[in-house]
Amino acid sequence: MESPELWRELGQQLRVDSVRAAAVTSSGHPTSSMSGADLMAVLLANHLHYDFANPEDPRNDHLVFSKGHASPLLYAMYKAAGAITDEELFTFRKFGSRLEGHPTPVIPWVDVATGSLGQGLPYGVGIALAGKRLDRLPYRTWVLCGDSEIAEGSVWEAFEHAAYEKLDNLTAIIDVNRLGQRGETMHGWDLGSYTKRAEAFGWHAIEIDGHDVEAIDRAFTEAADTTGVPTVIVAKTIKGKGVQAVENKDGFHGKALPEAEQAIEELGGIRNIAVEVAKPEISGEPHVFETSGSLELPSYELGAEVATRKAYGEALKAIGDARGDVIALDGEVSNSTYAEIFRDAHPDRYFEMFIAEQQMVAAAVGIQVRKWKPFASTFAAFFTRAYDFIRMAAISRANIKLCGSHAGVSIGEDGPSQMGLEDLAALRAVHGSTVLYPSDANQTAKLVEAMVDLDGIVFLRTTRGETPVIYEAGESFPVGGARVVRSSDEDEVALIGAGITLHEALKAADSLAGEGVSARVIDLYSVKPVDVKTLRATAEATGGRLVVAEDHWPEGGLGEAVLSAFAAADESVKVVHLAVREMPGSGKPAELLAAAGIDAEHIATAARQLVASTVGAAN
Amino acid sequence: MESPELWRELGQQLRVDSVRAAAVTSSGHPTSSMSGADLMAVLLANHLHYDFANPEDPRNDHLVFSKGHASPLLYAMYKAAGAITDEELFTFRKFGSRLEGHPTPVIPWVDVATGSLGQGLPYGVGIALAGKRLDRLPYRTWVLCGDSEIAEGSVWEAFEHAAYEKLDNLTAIIDVNRLGQRGETMHGWDLGSYTKRAEAFGWHAIEIDGHDVEAIDRAFTEAADTTGVPTVIVAKTIKGKGVQAVENKDGFHGKALPEAEQAIEELGGIRNIAVEVAKPEISGEPHVFETSGSLELPSYELGAEVATRKAYGEALKAIGDARGDVIALDGEVSNSTYAEIFRDAHPDRYFEMFIAEQQMVAAAVGIQVRKWKPFASTFAAFFTRAYDFIRMAAISRANIKLCGSHAGVSIGEDGPSQMGLEDLAALRAVHGSTVLYPSDANQTAKLVEAMVDLDGIVFLRTTRGETPVIYEAGESFPVGGARVVRSSDEDEVALIGAGITLHEALKAADSLAGEGVSARVIDLYSVKPVDVKTLRATAEATGGRLVVAEDHWPEGGLGEAVLSAFAAADESVKVVHLAVREMPGSGKPAELLAAAGIDAEHIATAARQLVASTVGAAN
Repeated sequence: MESPELWRELGQQLRVDSVRAAAVTSSGHPTSSMSGADLMAVLLANHLHYDFANPEDPRNDHLVFSKGHASPLLYAMYKAAGAITDEELFTFRKFGSRLEGHPTPVIPWVDVATGSLGQGLPYGVGIALAGKRLDRLPYRTWVLCGDSEIAEGSVWEAFEHAAYEKLDNLTAIIDVNRLGQRGETMHGWDLGSYTKRAEAFGWHAIEIDGHDVEAIDRAFTEAADTTGVPTVIVAKTIKGKGVQAVENKDGFHGKALPEAEQAIEELGGIRNIAVEVAKPEISGEPHVFETSGSLELPSYELGAEVATRKAYGEALKAIGDARGDVIALDGEVSNSTYAEIFRDAHPDRYFEMFIAEQQMVAAAVGIQVRKWKPFASTFAAFFTRAYDFIRMAAISRANIKLCGSHAGVSIGEDGPSQMGLEDLAALRAVHGSTVLYPSDANQTAKLVEAMVDLDGIVFLRTTRGETPVIYEAGESFPVGGARVVRSSDEDEVALIGAGITLHEALKAADSLAGEGVSARVIDLYSVKPVDVKTLRATAEATGGRLVVAEDHWPEGGLGEAVLSAFAAADESVKVVHLAVREMPGSGKPAELLAAAGIDAEHIATAARQLVASTVGAAN
Repeated sequence: MESPELWRELGQQLRVDSVRAAAVTSSGHPTSSMSGADLMAVLLANHLHYDFANPEDPRNDHLVFSKGHASPLLYAMYKAAGAITDEELFTFRKFGSRLEGHPTPVIPWVDVATGSLGQGLPYGVGIALAGKRLDRLPYRTWVLCGDSEIAEGSVWEAFEHAAYEKLDNLTAIIDVNRLGQRGETMHGWDLGSYTKRAEAFGWHAIEIDGHDVEAIDRAFTEAADTTGVPTVIVAKTIKGKGVQAVENKDGFHGKALPEAEQAIEELGGIRNIAVEVAKPEISGEPHVFETSGSLELPSYELGAEVATRKAYGEALKAIGDARGDVIALDGEVSNSTYAEIFRDAHPDRYFEMFIAEQQMVAAAVGIQVRKWKPFASTFAAFFTRAYDFIRMAAISRANIKLCGSHAGVSIGEDGPSQMGLEDLAALRAVHGSTVLYPSDANQTAKLVEAMVDLDGIVFLRTTRGETPVIYEAGESFPVGGARVVRSSDEDEVALIGAGITLHEALKAADSLAGEGVSARVIDLYSVKPVDVKTLRATAEATGGRLVVAEDHWPEGGLGEAVLSAFAAADESVKVVHLAVREMPGSGKPAELLAAAGIDAEHIATAARQLVASTVGAAN
């Protein structure tokens, strides 16, 4: 077969296989697959360079299905490439199958999970950044987008960053089939509305008929040949193309075709074209950054006043000195998070993401696709902006490290918009996440070191203000542990805190000691996983009297993490939970801690009352 | 004084007062205020129509400081308008002052809290939508934006929607002072980079020198005279303008001026110009939507199979029949959330927000500024996209209602990207929020009715699949309550669920009854506030044996809400917590509930084991 004829036939095969896959469980998105089938046929047959037998080959291109609901099309491509069988295709959406409703990296050829729209292009930017600035290999990243999802602001963050970083190794393909889930998109088939926006953002834009395989082929060639700027191919397509019953009709989104057999016949029947997908033609190995050698973490003297955010920056820089795979990104606040210390030492491995937290997290996810170790930082409050990306990163089985600074009311005058007060709840509720909240600079350094090789989503919460160094440099702080900071055999109550409240708890213990009340103090620096063993031992030693203080709303943070450790325990505990319960305003840190009822005085009062009300009573 | 001279003097006064305010606590953002001072001087003196004595006047213009950190400038405007005194200005950022670091509606002239960048313009779109389509009054909405924040994708969602809705009553002013927090922005003083993007998105754009008061005046007039499209004024300004020590210099973001006295002198000293701000010149009352009269909630027959998402749509439509102030918005999934039922009945009060969840929530916040009652819906999973807006909405003291459908693994084949599994944790951790999770259609209808007049952020979680109606129509379900669905004096264990797991708990209770184990079943439909009294009574009645099952990650949801009710209780409880602990894939709902260990069989097994291991032991 001549190429154009092959491409057309392959397009029909991809449609047929999409229809067949969706018929299995009568669910899925065949019509959204059929619109993009010709685009993907030409890509697979003539432009993609990918070794399906070796998905880890660093020279492979990357293909991201931002319109993840078109998974039948993606899986049909795998079949055409010989990567999966017809038999496996028929497991689509069945329990236990890796061919899920939306693609995830359970499949070895999928880099990132998609299905929350508007995310694929930001991930593509991350992968392309890795290619250009880290790996320094000219592999290409291709992203298939839907037209509905262009309404997501995150897509425009991606357009902005890709142009800024001159990512000519990135091609976006917008499958403009006009119809969203519940009707027409804002722009319908007005291709110009997309191209003029993309051009204004600095991209090269090409309009084509997305069913003209020769035009598609030329556009891909033009994209690959365009230097200095990324290219977007805006393709006019027809949803459900090839089957009259559904073609360009509303009401068939996310539905198997009503008459699959008839549709397959209309599409010319089942084909079994095997495509010899081109292997990478580029050569070379991923770039390796030179490093100075062994790790020398910063160390801080006992009693010195050091902000944990500063220790984060200094530790990250030191780790970057020792390891060339450590990367940093920041959202235009590097002088607050102290990511700037890393930036100044390792500018080649630093990415300024400006005020675009969604793109920042997405870039981290894209960068880790290529095994780099990204640390992304902003104010803890502003990770809420990227929460959907963090949620999806867990589904991507991504290994990313996030540092949220300026936690809680203790930041002071800036007021509630800048106070991370829900970050612990949000980050704990991410599958497989680790949540760390150090109380001192030496501990911060050790935890940052531990983060590098931890899998999953790892979140570190740092404090704005300076707090005293309470641990010797070099002490060990295992993830999942808690530190008994102060204890005696006479302890009647335990004070549990982390970060700023640990220091308040220590002051409270001092004042309680003056009154003859012996208090154990626990540093709960590992909020998730939480140290159930130490907590239970603490309860046993203190008559089950626990005061937990946290600079966070009452829900989902330290307090509930502690409670969860006792859910099914034999120990009976009384937990007095001090947390931020009223909307704070501006003020000095000490004023705001007092107003929230989480300072030393309130902790001491709570402990005193708890002891008075329960000592002597049956435990 | 002639106008231009007055404007120039007023600009200097705003600068001086910004410097003076920031000097109070040596914190704040005077340099970011100084760049926008001339823009705001001309606006205040010659274009804004606002009755400071009557901020509730529906004819007032609206001014949103999207660059909320320029609060000294805003407060200096209040002083110039005679709304606050110099004395109050000097409380800036002090504990207890309403003049917080970033503006909030604690101040009567502030509509929405800002300080998380990139949010003011989306709120402005909401207010302008209210003006155009609901109030139907020609008040204007003016939004002062920083240049750094244009990097946020949410800003482009706003550009897109404002043009789509032809919001010629909206003016954005971008204060292009070139310098962000840590250095130059992506585009520096390249004004064209902003205007060409805005024009591509369908706006009218005007470039000006932001310190030329006559040019500013002409631009505001041109904006007001432009019909059919919104206008953006892109103003080249100088950060720290007027004080050489800081003018156009990096390193002075968010810092009081080093030599305040000298700076004030350089700016020409303290002034006390009083501006007579024009009162609204437009007439008319806000539009009132005709309604058919009294509320007739939908009712469902016991035993019928009805999805709670369907009941949401039907109830909302019915409430909309009865009340003209109820509004609905949806993020392009109205045929899934069933907001389409409201849309079809009340198209004038329905807003299609396409796939732009940030703009959707922001529009709801903007719409409630004018006292309308907005209900915004999408999949529960996709509210994570707007989490920063929801967090900020709480600081805005906004009254908005959110409905998240397709909660949990029970959605089935679509896979984890579409499953809300962190929504309860995220929404519980919003200050003052209410979190509801109905189990049946009649209950849903009653809760939707209750939502209308509830203050704060109210979240309703609905289920995709059909579940049996278990409550009679018209029964009462108070917010903050829990329903004992089944009980007897012999109960040895309680099964606690909500939504889909309540039905699994009922099935489990049936099978336990067959084995002679009597189980109480609790419907925890009000997740926040949680019904502490009923939970404690339940524990007392069942020997403290509780099994909680939830279709959510283990953190921050039903389980921890239950634990929080017992934190400091005298009752000793054992809580077996069944939740989704592994990443789900695709499959049938029943398969996924079983795999997650939250179906009837797992609940029964947990209850059986809990009873076996504890009955006979001391309670």
